[in-house]
Amino acid sequence: MKIVFTKILFGLLLILSLIIVASAQDLQTARRNLMPVPSSVNWQSGRLNVTKNFTVAVKGNTDERLKSYIFRVMRRLEGRTVLEMSREISSDASATLLIETNSTGNAIPKLGDDESYNLEITNNQAKLTAPNTVGAMRGLETFLQILEGDKDGFYFPAVSIKDQPRFAWRGLMIDSARHFMPLEVIKRNLDAMAAVKLNVLHWHLTEDQGFRVETRKFPELYLQGSDGDFYTQEQIREIIKYAADRGIRVMPEFDMPGHATAWLVSHPEIGSGKPGETYEIERRPGIFDPTLDPTNEKTYKLLEVFFKEMSALFPDAYMHIGGDENEGKQWNANPKIQAFMKEKGIKDNHQLQTYFNKRILKFLEKNGKIMMGWDEIFQPDLPKNVVIHSWRGQKALADAAKLGVTGVLSNGYYIDLMFPASQHYAVDPIPADTTLTAEEQKRILGGEATMWSEWVSPETIDSRIWSRMPAVAERFWSPREINDVDDMYRRLSIIQNQLEELGLTHRKNQAMMLRRLTNNQDISALQSLVSIIEPVKEYKRYQVRPQTMLSPLTGLVDAANADAPNARIFNRAVSELIAGKDSEINAENIRKMLGDWRSSQNGLQNLMATSPALAEAKQLGFDFQKITEIAQEALDALESNRAKDSAQKSAEWREAQLKTLAEIAKSKAGLEIVVVESIKKMVLAASEK
Amino acid sequence: MKIVFTKILFGLLLILSLIIVASAQDLQTARRNLMPVPSSVNWQSGRLNVTKNFTVAVKGNTDERLKSYIFRVMRRLEGRTVLEMSREISSDASATLLIETNSTGNAIPKLGDDESYNLEITNNQAKLTAPNTVGAMRGLETFLQILEGDKDGFYFPAVSIKDQPRFAWRGLMIDSARHFMPLEVIKRNLDAMAAVKLNVLHWHLTEDQGFRVETRKFPELYLQGSDGDFYTQEQIREIIKYAADRGIRVMPEFDMPGHATAWLVSHPEIGSGKPGETYEIERRPGIFDPTLDPTNEKTYKLLEVFFKEMSALFPDAYMHIGGDENEGKQWNANPKIQAFMKEKGIKDNHQLQTYFNKRILKFLEKNGKIMMGWDEIFQPDLPKNVVIHSWRGQKALADAAKLGVTGVLSNGYYIDLMFPASQHYAVDPIPADTTLTAEEQKRILGGEATMWSEWVSPETIDSRIWSRMPAVAERFWSPREINDVDDMYRRLSIIQNQLEELGLTHRKNQAMMLRRLTNNQDISALQSLVSIIEPVKEYKRYQVRPQTMLSPLTGLVDAANADAPNARIFNRAVSELIAGKDSEINAENIRKMLGDWRSSQNGLQNLMATSPALAEAKQLGFDFQKITEIAQEALDALESNRAKDSAQKSAEWREAQLKTLAEIAKSKAGLEIVVVESIKKMVLAASEK
Repeated sequence: MKIVFTKILFGLLLILSLIIVASAQDLQTARRNLMPVPSSVNWQSGRLNVTKNFTVAVKGNTDERLKSYIFRVMRRLEGRTVLEMSREISSDASATLLIETNSTGNAIPKLGDDESYNLEITNNQAKLTAPNTVGAMRGLETFLQILEGDKDGFYFPAVSIKDQPRFAWRGLMIDSARHFMPLEVIKRNLDAMAAVKLNVLHWHLTEDQGFRVETRKFPELYLQGSDGDFYTQEQIREIIKYAADRGIRVMPEFDMPGHATAWLVSHPEIGSGKPGETYEIERRPGIFDPTLDPTNEKTYKLLEVFFKEMSALFPDAYMHIGGDENEGKQWNANPKIQAFMKEKGIKDNHQLQTYFNKRILKFLEKNGKIMMGWDEIFQPDLPKNVVIHSWRGQKALADAAKLGVTGVLSNGYYIDLMFPASQHYAVDPIPADTTLTAEEQKRILGGEATMWSEWVSPETIDSRIWSRMPAVAERFWSPREINDVDDMYRRLSIIQNQLEELGLTHRKNQAMMLRRLTNNQDISALQSLVSIIEPVKEYKRYQVRPQTMLSPLTGLVDAANADAPNARIFNRAVSELIAGKDSEINAENIRKMLGDWRSSQNGLQNLMATSPALAEAKQLGFDFQKITEIAQEALDALESNRAKDSAQKSAEWREAQLKTLAEIAKSKAGLEIVVVESIKKMVLAASEK
Repeated sequence: MKIVFTKILFGLLLILSLIIVASAQDLQTARRNLMPVPSSVNWQSGRLNVTKNFTVAVKGNTDERLKSYIFRVMRRLEGRTVLEMSREISSDASATLLIETNSTGNAIPKLGDDESYNLEITNNQAKLTAPNTVGAMRGLETFLQILEGDKDGFYFPAVSIKDQPRFAWRGLMIDSARHFMPLEVIKRNLDAMAAVKLNVLHWHLTEDQGFRVETRKFPELYLQGSDGDFYTQEQIREIIKYAADRGIRVMPEFDMPGHATAWLVSHPEIGSGKPGETYEIERRPGIFDPTLDPTNEKTYKLLEVFFKEMSALFPDAYMHIGGDENEGKQWNANPKIQAFMKEKGIKDNHQLQTYFNKRILKFLEKNGKIMMGWDEIFQPDLPKNVVIHSWRGQKALADAAKLGVTGVLSNGYYIDLMFPASQHYAVDPIPADTTLTAEEQKRILGGEATMWSEWVSPETIDSRIWSRMPAVAERFWSPREINDVDDMYRRLSIIQNQLEELGLTHRKNQAMMLRRLTNNQDISALQSLVSIIEPVKEYKRYQVRPQTMLSPLTGLVDAANADAPNARIFNRAVSELIAGKDSEINAENIRKMLGDWRSSQNGLQNLMATSPALAEAKQLGFDFQKITEIAQEALDALESNRAKDSAQKSAEWREAQLKTLAEIAKSKAGLEIVVVESIKKMVLAASEK
């Protein structure tokens, strides 16, 4: 017993010490460019060199989906290596890449499909084994991420990987309703989703601002509710196939009873407004009153037919009915509805919505669909065989799980709100301190990031999604313990770069937009500014810079993005400097950045003066100049302090700078300079006793 | 008489002196950002300010095409100004932009359609008048190009423009056969074509390397001849409508009897090879032997049905049958064909091809089509009602014109050959020194640039076309006298920038490709090199860097482009310096550029060492370093000379540098450093007595 105990203790100590010495460098070595990080990775010594003689073989089961996937992966490998390789897929067991699968799996993916795979790379061969085609797809993406290059050429480092997802539901919601997204936007986003192992496209298709799906039963719905921007059923089938070919489910959402203005443009009779009330497509963002009438049999007559048609069109077992943000104003104001509630003994609007949901549930069940909806649909008297989609948080989801109801988390993954990747990355669908039992935990199916489209266009949507989405995808796929933020950002940058090979535009469109804003002038000075500013967060944009759904999304706020790259580097250097960590290196880096900023000032002022499209951001140019000066003064003082000079800044100086910084901290043109807090810290440190 | 003569003389002298004093600045003022330059432009004082209250009205005839075009133009105006404007198109005569047309014109454009328009902009209104919808489209593009901005905001300067094209046929040929180009590539290129007033998409659809069009009569042609990459008839109709909505004709080309390997994959029986010979889709570039058999009635039986089907699919009056580069090898080697020729008294392969063409001509005529073909189809005994498409040159075209045959010039507009814009710009379909009569000149219908697609992918094709195409478009539209090269380049740069608002990728994909080549490292040092290198010209690429149609087009040679921007600036500065023009300014500019180059060296060497995809270009990195040193030494010597020091370089030094430069001048990785000649000049000048 004693010996065993000692061994365990020794083992624990060893693990502990390994954890402690694990530095950024170790993580870089351990995780290389993998994102999401697989559940088990063991690097070996050795390398599989990549030459033009690279070959692929498939053993066991195969199908067209797998062959097409291999074809595309091979073209990407060729693109990166600039080597032409054979297009043959043989069954030769000695091929460079040998793929073994036992089954094609579901041609149209289903929740719970096995997505696991093993990947063994030695000096001679890469061997990918998976129970089915989708597992092989996931493994192929990992394989591509492993590619490295050095002076001796491209190679795959030897490795042994065993991998499977932590959560079965790993989604991205795209709102095609507020701003319509053409087919190619959806396709390229599906490509990127597959690259980071996401498996659900939640497609938000109806809203106050648009009805985006062809229905043959009620063509007036899209003809009058979409400005002509809708998906035909043929296009939807094309997307479903495109997604299935990448192991991705497509779940449609038809948001109701609220968020329904676009329905009522052609069918005012099923709205809850006054008799004879008419509706127009909503152009503003926000929460609106128009709501389907749950007391009107015409509503159900239409919806029954509609859901039958949509159930046939969308093969996925789940159908999302929204259900959010119904404030019930039309219901309260409508005497008929009030009378109905009284008659039926329905006590409040929640109960009325549950009445509505139960009726809808029957339509869905009749067509073999499982109902999914936002938190609001979860009411005590609704049956438990629904899926709760939580925008409210992990607690709501845990509460539901305890009651036997499954759920998916989106709270914390609202990527439209322009928060940094680190913030989303820190949110776990099942936090480490969960009190849920193992059984209950299984009811948390996973998570979904939401790309609400108030302020995105086809030109900018990729930048809003892929600036942070790979970090969220990792949270959904990888073990909970994969959570080092610095290493996440390192890998994120590489993955973002690779995604553009798929036709994504998240990086390349920024320079184009800046060129348009300046009418073809040299944009380098503007890029210096853009790399430390971010759009305002949460729902502030509309408050500080109102626009409608018809407005051009081509301003500086649209070109800028969350996670401004230089701001993150600067803020980190300041934190460390003040904490006394690597002071010399950090001071030097800060000095260098300030030098870059200073050298951009003239060019920036000139751009601002000659580009009317930048007029709204003029003050940001002045602010940029000012923070550069203040930071430089503070840095000089801090440096003197370190050198034990007596350059301590006065309290008056401090107060003056803080006052200036408080003004600069206010957003302008929907943007904020995100290094202001750091410069404030520098000012405080420079003037401390 | 005398007074009149004096007045004329005075007038002539005035014009002459105006021409002489016309400086770059004058041209900039005169032409602003217009490309192609209208036939008559009179700038006035005054400006029409652009606010969010901008309105549009249409008077006279209107149609959906015009309304859609206005809609798109307005969205682009919004995009540039970041102002939301009304989407209403009224008939209010006081609208900011008032458009008057008398007729919708041809819904499917026809050769010779009136494309003229007048545009009058005053302080209060822009008034666009045109005889028909297409004229209005052309005027709307001019209108957008006029937009200016300054510290007071966006505005349209007051102007009076009368404009019409010089040539009725202004084409771009896109080869979708050697590399297939997806629908969205064709669409965005049509958008860009309309923006620079081009009006013919010549669509090259069949080749040795691919058969790209769905035929319902012979599905085996595309099923076996395209690797699955072809256009469905529905997609072709979509493109024809898309083009028509932009005032662009779509003329298909089915190249025959040569360039026909892809046909013979499924129909070897109509080939001219040995009995039983089989064919595979060709993967190499070049001229190949497989040729349709003009002596086989099966050939005509198939083609008669095929042309009937295609004639119904493509509404344009013209149909291109290629006819080029048939070297007749299979014909010479085929005893049956030789016997046929003997029997019919056909003396040579030219006559045999004419026999073939005459038979085809009948099929086309039966379907109401006019035959167009490359120079080779022009043989004495072919009827004169065909159109000659000249890759051989203006003389061939002039010769045909003298014989009463119409023609279109492509010689000089082969944009796939990577020559600079200036070279294409200097080619005129009807040179100033033409000996053709006015009547004969009318037979020169215009010109077409050719985008042969051996070495372009969907990722790079825009960069190959739009780096130079706007200059060619100007040659086809504007008066012959619009030919100042510096001003062309100034405007080209602005127009290129604007075209990306249409979704084109010619600028933005370069950085993306460089990031991929370096696996996400900082590419600025590589950009320094890329801005002075160009792909090798003419047909050298395949010689020095062989690839096939299946090879990845992701190398440095694919990221680099013709008209390397910094090379042009450098070369010009060197020319002027050596000619003694603005010596101080030019020396200073050269010194600055050399400083930039020097500061890129370390970064570049590092990128080259760590990026296997750049391994092939490693020597270019060393060469870059070497030319920087040599240029610096030569510049120092030239500067000393100017300062009357005695730093004349020795003959030995000169010989050593010239020897080094001769090595550097050799292409590497399919690329050449295009400042070597200038540095050679500097070396010579620095060592001259």
